This record gives sequence, structure tokens and C-alpha cells, in this order.
Amino acid sequence: MEYTVGYYDVAVVGAGHAGCEAALAAARMGMKTVVFAINLDSIALMPCNPSIGGPAKGHLVREIDALGGEMAINTDKTFIQIRMLNTGKGPAVRALRAQADKKAYQFSMKYTLERQQNLDVVQEEVVRILEEGGKVRGVVTRTGGIFYSKAVILTTGVYLRGRIIIGDVNYSGGPNGLFPASQLSKSLEDLGFELGRFKTGTPPRVHKHSIDFSKMIEQPGDEVIIPFSYTSGEIKRDQVSCWLTYSNKHTHEIIMENLYRAPLYTGDIQGVGPRYCPSIEVKVVNFKEKASHQIFIEPEGINTNEMYIQGMSTSLPADVQIKMLRTIKGLENARIMRYGYAIEYDYVIPTQLSLSLETRKIKGLYMAGQINGTSGYEEAAAQGLIAGINAALMIKEKEPVILKRSDAYIGVLIDDLITKGITEPYRMLTSRAEYRLLLRHDNADLRLTEIGHEVGLINDKRYEKTLKKKQMIQEEIERLRSVKITPTEENNRALEEMETAPINTPFTLEDLLKRPELDYEKLKILDKNRPELPQDVIDQVEIMISYDGYIKRQIDQVESFKKLENKRIPENIDYDRIYGLRTEARERLKKVMPGSVGQASRISGVNPADISILLIYLEQQKRKKAHG
Amino acid sequence: MEYTVGYYDVAVVGAGHAGCEAALAAARMGMKTVVFAINLDSIALMPCNPSIGGPAKGHLVREIDALGGEMAINTDKTFIQIRMLNTGKGPAVRALRAQADKKAYQFSMKYTLERQQNLDVVQEEVVRILEEGGKVRGVVTRTGGIFYSKAVILTTGVYLRGRIIIGDVNYSGGPNGLFPASQLSKSLEDLGFELGRFKTGTPPRVHKHSIDFSKMIEQPGDEVIIPFSYTSGEIKRDQVSCWLTYSNKHTHEIIMENLYRAPLYTGDIQGVGPRYCPSIEVKVVNFKEKASHQIFIEPEGINTNEMYIQGMSTSLPADVQIKMLRTIKGLENARIMRYGYAIEYDYVIPTQLSLSLETRKIKGLYMAGQINGTSGYEEAAAQGLIAGINAALMIKEKEPVILKRSDAYIGVLIDDLITKGITEPYRMLTSRAEYRLLLRHDNADLRLTEIGHEVGLINDKRYEKTLKKKQMIQEEIERLRSVKITPTEENNRALEEMETAPINTPFTLEDLLKRPELDYEKLKILDKNRPELPQDVIDQVEIMISYDGYIKRQIDQVESFKKLENKRIPENIDYDRIYGLRTEARERLKKVMPGSVGQASRISGVNPADISILLIYLEQQKRKKAHG
Repeated sequence: MEYTVGYYDVAVVGAGHAGCEAALAAARMGMKTVVFAINLDSIALMPCNPSIGGPAKGHLVREIDALGGEMAINTDKTFIQIRMLNTGKGPAVRALRAQADKKAYQFSMKYTLERQQNLDVVQEEVVRILEEGGKVRGVVTRTGGIFYSKAVILTTGVYLRGRIIIGDVNYSGGPNGLFPASQLSKSLEDLGFELGRFKTGTPPRVHKHSIDFSKMIEQPGDEVIIPFSYTSGEIKRDQVSCWLTYSNKHTHEIIMENLYRAPLYTGDIQGVGPRYCPSIEVKVVNFKEKASHQIFIEPEGINTNEMYIQGMSTSLPADVQIKMLRTIKGLENARIMRYGYAIEYDYVIPTQLSLSLETRKIKGLYMAGQINGTSGYEEAAAQGLIAGINAALMIKEKEPVILKRSDAYIGVLIDDLITKGITEPYRMLTSRAEYRLLLRHDNADLRLTEIGHEVGLINDKRYEKTLKKKQMIQEEIERLRSVKITPTEENNRALEEMETAPINTPFTLEDLLKRPELDYEKLKILDKNRPELPQDVIDQVEIMISYDGYIKRQIDQVESFKKLENKRIPENIDYDRIYGLRTEARERLKKVMPGSVGQASRISGVNPADISILLIYLEQQKRKKAHG
Repeated sequence: MEYTVGYYDVAVVGAGHAGCEAALAAARMGMKTVVFAINLDSIALMPCNPSIGGPAKGHLVREIDALGGEMAINTDKTFIQIRMLNTGKGPAVRALRAQADKKAYQFSMKYTLERQQNLDVVQEEVVRILEEGGKVRGVVTRTGGIFYSKAVILTTGVYLRGRIIIGDVNYSGGPNGLFPASQLSKSLEDLGFELGRFKTGTPPRVHKHSIDFSKMIEQPGDEVIIPFSYTSGEIKRDQVSCWLTYSNKHTHEIIMENLYRAPLYTGDIQGVGPRYCPSIEVKVVNFKEKASHQIFIEPEGINTNEMYIQGMSTSLPADVQIKMLRTIKGLENARIMRYGYAIEYDYVIPTQLSLSLETRKIKGLYMAGQINGTSGYEEAAAQGLIAGINAALMIKEKEPVILKRSDAYIGVLIDDLITKGITEPYRMLTSRAEYRLLLRHDNADLRLTEIGHEVGLINDKRYEKTLKKKQMIQEEIERLRSVKITPTEENNRALEEMETAPINTPFTLEDLLKRPELDYEKLKILDKNRPELPQDVIDQVEIMISYDGYIKRQIDQVESFKKLENKRIPENIDYDRIYGLRTEARERLKKVMPGSVGQASRISGVNPADISILLIYLEQQKRKKAHG
């Protein structure tokens, strides 16, 4: 029997990393929101790594923070180690990575949801989407409860028809002994959505006391903590270490010998796995020439002895897992607490969405996270936030937030999913971004706080703080540009002491700062009237001046990119009427229905010649209209 | 494919309250032990009340503590409220009751398991028991792992063929969106065990901010905290309140109107539920004359807004749950976070066990907790501890610990299960104990520490402390017995001031202390040479003197009871050869195979005449043997 429970603006199905952000964003934007979890104790579960961030992923977290999301704040509350990666490399690839206390992360996020105004948190499995005339109406739960809503956001993670695989054993299940969602896929199929099947996996967890850390390389946290969130301020905290070891020939032999029992090779796993996060058996098979692979040992929390064996994701049989682990230095006596496993799940082919993350088929139905074929907590959270924002904006009858590829990694992520489509679980990588030097983790606030403020997720105070920071950066750059250092004897002596060439004409401080061997701190002695500035402002000034040439070039690229991006394609375009388009391009364009010529140009199977034809057609149409 | 993982002394299947105690006890007694959970994150889960203790249950917790178990210690670490109940009543029914922080309780217990030497904690579902020649050999997991062991302790809770029921919806499942154990029951049946089917249930959880506490009666914690464990020392902690409200006519009407949809009355629930913890629909049907029932609102933790609605356990459909809750004062706008549900599960008819909790059929196979048909965390933990101790003692080739009904509530509990058998989930009640005045919560240490020490779970220091306490109590009682107060004018004036009758012959301090209007503190003025004693010693002295007559009578009863209890029945007795036994008695005796005449006398269906015949038969056999 079905019965009405209530009327909501937004219903969010699933409370993993995507669902939490979606629900919080919608509720904070004033929407009456409900979020469902099959088990409330698995809200914000980290079934894989106890880690947030890293290259590209860390950028996403910073962007989520700048837009008013929760992931960075929650990570800062619960990390047990934090490090800035790639400090020796350019600013584009530097990134924060934190180890979280898994359980603390979960329950802290759960409590944040519980305390959020306008938000109901309900333990129920959603089994059906209600739709009427191409518009979403709400959802139905397993116990028959109807929750009417104006928007529905699906953030189902790996739960849709989840199936666990370990060696020759497999059964229907969600992650970690939790229930899968077995009915919702059917509802999506009934609504006409095309589903795909992906797989992902986790490594075993090992008892700390069974590991010999003396044989491994210690990876401590940073001494000076730079937090994820721009709101966190200074954090002092004792940190725990991670540990590095390696697989070896013997490990690889055991894997090769048991390959006939590996579900990835026996055909027991049908779903496609993530290329950039492969299981150890795939690494060994695909990189036969590599004698070893890195294995990181990561603590799962402060008050547990479970250790995550990063790099050893596997669905090999349990006995092989034990054998192969014990070949590794420091793991000779490893006692496994949880075995690694693969999980197969349904996802929705993401080219069925528009860039707002709304489905093109059903108005008001949004999808975010692994259901769109991505992997990773950060990728999920980023989409969840955007889906939450856009569901709320739709209800408020406002334009959706669509971040461009030049605005944010989030823009790259969503554009890749919707425009290019995917053939494997999608993971964010810095190499996916064309404008890496603009999309730095350190300037996410400068790039995105304004948007967060506009939609109502960033309060005035925080917004003004960012504006002030922007202004200080600008003023300081201008000042450095205007202050001239004359070639006096005293100045040249100072330059000599800095081990840099002397000057014989006046140089601006900007000119000097561009010299690789100099930095802002060193130039202090020449810069008598330097104002007192916060470190984050100085960092920006230094980066923007040092990388000025590269940055300018990228900005130029963005501008020409924007021209194509701004060429809108009308929604009612009929590709069958465009003469000269190749059949493949026509089919792909009809499938994706891009909103702009820029988007069209990134569709795989659409080549530059097709784009020229499209441009000509659009020009003709425009003229016709002008004349008509 | 199956493969050997390792060789253990003891394997514990399930890590709920019984499993945790069993595993810790065995490991602490030096046994190489492994404990399995389907999900490590659900170790020590409290799927029902966030509460430990109360009358009889609190006694069990104190006894567990005195024997060297963990429940009391873990409760003291994580309680958010604690109260001494029935302070206005006699000492036999006084009891501690704590509200625990559910998640803190769980993860604190998990970490205790993880840090325990000799103990492996493994996430795996056990699917089969290995047996050979009537002896247990180990267990097999779902992934094919064989864990050989000399003893196996089953503590499967409600997981065996678990089925969740909410209104007309039902599905295979464990508590709270967790996986059930679907294969182990079959293995038990294959081994020849007779299984039964019970059901239990939980009430909905409601969001704190949707409750109007101003309409309820506050129940704060005690100002002076008395901890559960004898080892905890002084505890200072901020406490949270519980709240009392009532169901009413309107609530009951909604239930009666919807009874045709209640699985308990439609026949959808086959399993028998706990009479002493009935669902609200059963209470309303069975007690039609009652206009209201008590409802307690209990916080589930410090960092959550989930509130447990104690007294509203139900499997009514979700829509009825909402409607009936909202009729209650203070719950008019209640928002449900988790719906109440019933769960049906397999248990093993406990008369197939002996008093050591070992099965009679298979040597080395023990069972504890809900699998034996009990309900309640404390009942489970008590059995788990005894099973763990006895498995270890069996391996050490020592006699099992069998607590008598006069030793402990634990003795009553196990004797009731094994001897009397059960027809519904068994809950401990003070009324089940014949010798309540001896089995007080305040003297559990005096009763049981010695046994805990003997088996090796209590260290020497703690044991000596208890011996010292015993000695101080004894000495003080003797002193009070010997110190005579003479009828001087001064003494009688003092007595008059205490509002008690003057004396005209010498009275001992003991005599005076027996007067209800006097207590130890008041008598100080007459007791010049009183030694400085700790409060717990004084409490014992007062109770033992005030209740001296009653206590003596119970001790006498115990003595005569012991005579029957000490009359052992040989294991190879053939009841078919005892002439004159009634058929019913013969069948029941053959089923239970009691170890003593005392135990035989408590079997339902065995009457005093049967016992006389049994006694005569045993006497004859003894004489035959003596003459033979």
C-alpha cells in the first residue's frame, strides 16, 4: 500500500558524498529537502580509501569549498594527516591530500545533515521515481511512502543492483556488508534511461599490529598544516603517519599463477573498471615490465587498528589475497581484517544529462556522482553540489550554474561526462584540464566564491573577505609593477647577495620577481615601503607574477574558446536537416544535444569539418530569422 | 573453492554483545581466538535501545564485570546518562541503568577487540560449522576460508535467516539495512539441531528538533554518578536527559483501526515475540483497559539528533507509525528518521545445550545470546562471557564454570534456558531469581570476583582488593556486634535526639542498627572508636545487618537447595529403566538430561513425585555400586 508522507521541494536519493552535498546545498538555498539512505549509519561512508584530495581531486575539494559545499570543512574537522603534494613542482599540480578518520568523517557529516534546517534525513530505500508528463513528481520508498517533490536528485553510488565479487564467490550486495538497492534500476529503465554497468574495488584491510613498519618508508604529515577549507583558519593537530612499501616479483608471480581464478579475467566481472585506479592484478598484467608497484599503508582512523592497503585493490580469491600480501616487505605476517572485493553496479549513461546535471528526458530529475559513471568521493561531491544548486535554482526559476572548463575542474568534470561521454569509471586528473595554470587549488576562492555567494551558499561576510583579498592581490601587483629599483651601488650589492645579476637600468619589482632565483621574501630589502600582507595574498602575487606569461597565454586561449562556447545551439535544432554532416557526427550530436558549438566540438566522433558545417548552418539560420 | 586460513583455539561467530564478551574472555584466557562479523562496523551494535542495565539487567552487567567481562567498563566509557533506579525500594531491586552513546559504545568496543592480544577480528560471514566424530573442527566462511578451531561459539543474534517486516513489506535482512546470515541455519539443521523462530522489534527514531520537550517530563541523570564497573573509580561527566510522555486514547484508536494491517495480527509474523517487551500494538490489544502507556524519549548519542521512542516498538505500516506518533503529547510534529520494524530470526532450542553452554550433541560447540532464545544486550553478554570462559576451560581440560541460581542472575538465566526451556524471547527479570536478596547488584563483586580470578580474567590486584573489602565488611559487622552501648543518661539522650526509643539494658550497635529509623551514619555519635571505612564497605554492612533475618532465611533455602543441586545424575542414566516415572516426565528428562536432581526438579513437566522416584532410583544405584 502506498501513502503520502509529505511534500518537498527536493528529494535526494542516497547520502554518500554526492548526496550529502546535494542535500545540504538545496536545504541551505531554502528548499524543503529530504535525503534518503538505506542505512543512516552509512551516511558519507568511505568504502574505499580513508583519504580526501590529491592532485585534481584536491582541486575539486577546494572548489567545492569556494562554492559553499561541505567536503572541505568536514575533512578539516576529521583529518588525521594532511600534506601538500608536489611542492617541488609548479603551482598548477600542487594539491592537498588528507587522511581522514573514516568513522569521525561519517558521523560528523551525518550530524551536519541532522542539524541542517529545511532538511529531513530518512532511512528508507527508494524504489521508484514518480513522473508525470515529462516532469518528476517525487519518489516512492520500499515501505510504500510517497515523498512528492519538485526535483529529485539521484546519488545512488554503487548501490544500484550492487553485486560483490571475491574470487569465485559473488552475491548481491552494497559495499561492506550493506544492502544494495535492487529496485530503482528497473524504475529508471521504465522511464527510458539507458544504463551501463561498471565495477570498482577495494583492497584488503590489515591489522596494524601485524605490520612491520620498520621495513617501510614513513610518510609523516606536514608540519605546517594548510587546511582544505578557506574557512578553517589555523589548525593544530597531532598527525599519524602513512607508510610506503612495494610489491615485488614474488607478489606478481602469485598473481599470475592465480589469474585463472581472477574474476576480472574469468569473465565473472562484466562491468568496466577504472583505468586510473586499477586493481593489482590488472597492474601486474598490463605493466609486465614493472618489477614493483607502490603500496601505501594508510590508517583508517585514530581509534582503530584497521590499516588500508592502498594500491592492492583486488577481487582475487581470499586465499590469494593472503598469499600475495605476505610476499610484501613489512606485510610478511599480515592479518587481514577485511578482504578486498570488487563491486559491480549500474550507472546511467551520462550523455543523457544536460550540463546542469538535469536529465534531458525528465524535467526536475538530476543525477550526481557514481550514478553518472564517475569514481571518487571528490568527483561525487562536486557533482552533488552542482546538482543541489541547480535543482534549487530550477525551482526558483533561475538559470542553472554551469561552470565552464576555464572556470573550474568541476566544469571540466561535468563537461567531460556530458559531452564526451565515458567508457570507464571517470576519475579527475590534472591532465584533463586545458587551463591548469588558471585552475589552481590555491585560487579556487578567487575563481568561485562569487558564484557561491550569488546562489546563496556563501554569506556576505565571507564573500567580502574574498573580494578584499582579490583587491589586495591586485593592488600589490600594481604596486610591484610601479615601484622602480634604481641601479644604485647599494641596490646592486643587495642583488649580488641574493645571488642574482646586478641591474644597470631601473627595474620594477615585478621584473625582479620574475627572476626564478628571487622571491617576494628575498626582495624585502629592496622594497622599503612594502605593506603588511597576509601570506595567502603574497602567495597569489608571487604565482601570478612568476607565471605571468603562461597565465596570459591560457587566458587568451580561454577567450577564443569562449567565443565558440558562447555560440548557442537552439534546443530545437534538427540535425537531420543539416546537409553535409557525416552520419557519425549527426548521430553523436543527436545523442548529446550540445548547448553550444564549443560543447559540440568536444564530442568524440565530431571533427573540425563537422563543426564548420554546423557553424555555417547556424549562421544561415540566424540570417533567415533576421530576414524572416 | 575452500582453503585453510589458520588454526585457532576458539572461533566466535558474530560480534554483538555476546560475541564480544566470548571473544575477549577466550583471548584473555590465553586462547588463540578469531571473531567474525558480517560487517566490522556493526560490532557491538545496539539495534534497539541506546541503554544498558535496569532491574535484573543491571545486575547482569555488574556480574559480568565481577567475572572480568567488558560490558560494564565499556558502558562507563561511553554513557551519556546514568541513574540508580528504585532507590526508594529494597536493595534487591535497586539497579543501575545507563544511556549509552550508541556509536561511541560500538567503536570503543571494536577498538577493545582490536587491541586484545590473541584475538583476530575478521569481516566474514560464516556459512558452515565443521564437525568430525561429534567434535567441532572449525568454521567455513562465505569466501571459502576454513578457520580450524578446537571450540566454536555461535553468537549470531538476529542474523540467522533474518527477515525484516514493516506493515505489508517484508524482506530478507539483518537489523538496520545490514545483511542477514542466510546459510548458517542450514548447517545447524544438517548437524541435527532443532531450530525455532522468534521475532523482536524496534520503535521509530525521531528527529530531536521535531519534538516539543516542554510537554514532557524530564528525566535527568543522577548527580552523583555510581559507575557500572567496580574498576571505574570516580566519574565526572555532563549528562543528557531523557523525557517521559504517554500514549493516549487517540493513539490507541489509530492502532485498533489499523490492526488489520498489523503483521502481528495478519499472520505475516510467525515468530513469537518477547512478552516483556511487547510492541505497542500488542500492549494496546492485550491491555484494553489501560488508557495510556509510558513512552520514554531517549537520545541515541551526543553528536546525533536521533531520538529513540522507547515503548513504541512496532511493525505497523510506516504511514500508521507516523499517524500514531503524532497523537502523542510533544510528538505532534514528529519527523521519523528511521521507521520501527520487526525482525524474525532463527534460534536454537536451548534445551539442546548443557549448563556450560556447550551443545550436548557436538563437543566444543557453544552458543550464547539471542541464538539461545534470549532478548537483551545484557542477557547476551552474560552468556557470551560464560561461553567464552567455558570454551577456554574445555581446551585447558578444566571443569566448566557453572554458576548456581544462588550465585548469580547469570546462573538463573542459564538454568532457566537450559532446564526450563523457553517459549518466547527470554528476558531477565528480578522475579525470576529465588534469592534476590542475596543476588544484589551491590555485592556482585563479593559473589563472583573469586571465580573471575580463578579462571584468569581478574588480576591478583583486583582480587586482593575484593578480599580486603570482604574482610573489612566482616570485621566491621563483628565489631558492631561486640560493641555494647550501655543505658547511660547521655546515651539515651542521644538516642532520643535520633527519634528512637531509649534503652534500659545494654544494646549492641548491631541491635540498634537493625532499628529502621537508624542508620550507620546516625549512630556515629554513640560509636566512639569507629574506624574510617570506604562507603561501599559501609553500604554492605548496613544492608547485611538491616536485612539480616531475610538474608539468613535465603541462605538456609540455598543450603537445602544445594543438597538437591549436589545430587549429581550420572551422564549415562537411562530414564527408560526407572520404574514408575510418568511418561511426560520421562520424555522431558530425556530431552534435557539434567546434571543434578536440583536441575531435574526445575524442568517443567517434572513434578515432585517424579523427583522422589528419581531420588530412590539414584539411591538404589549408589548402593548397588557400593556392593558391586
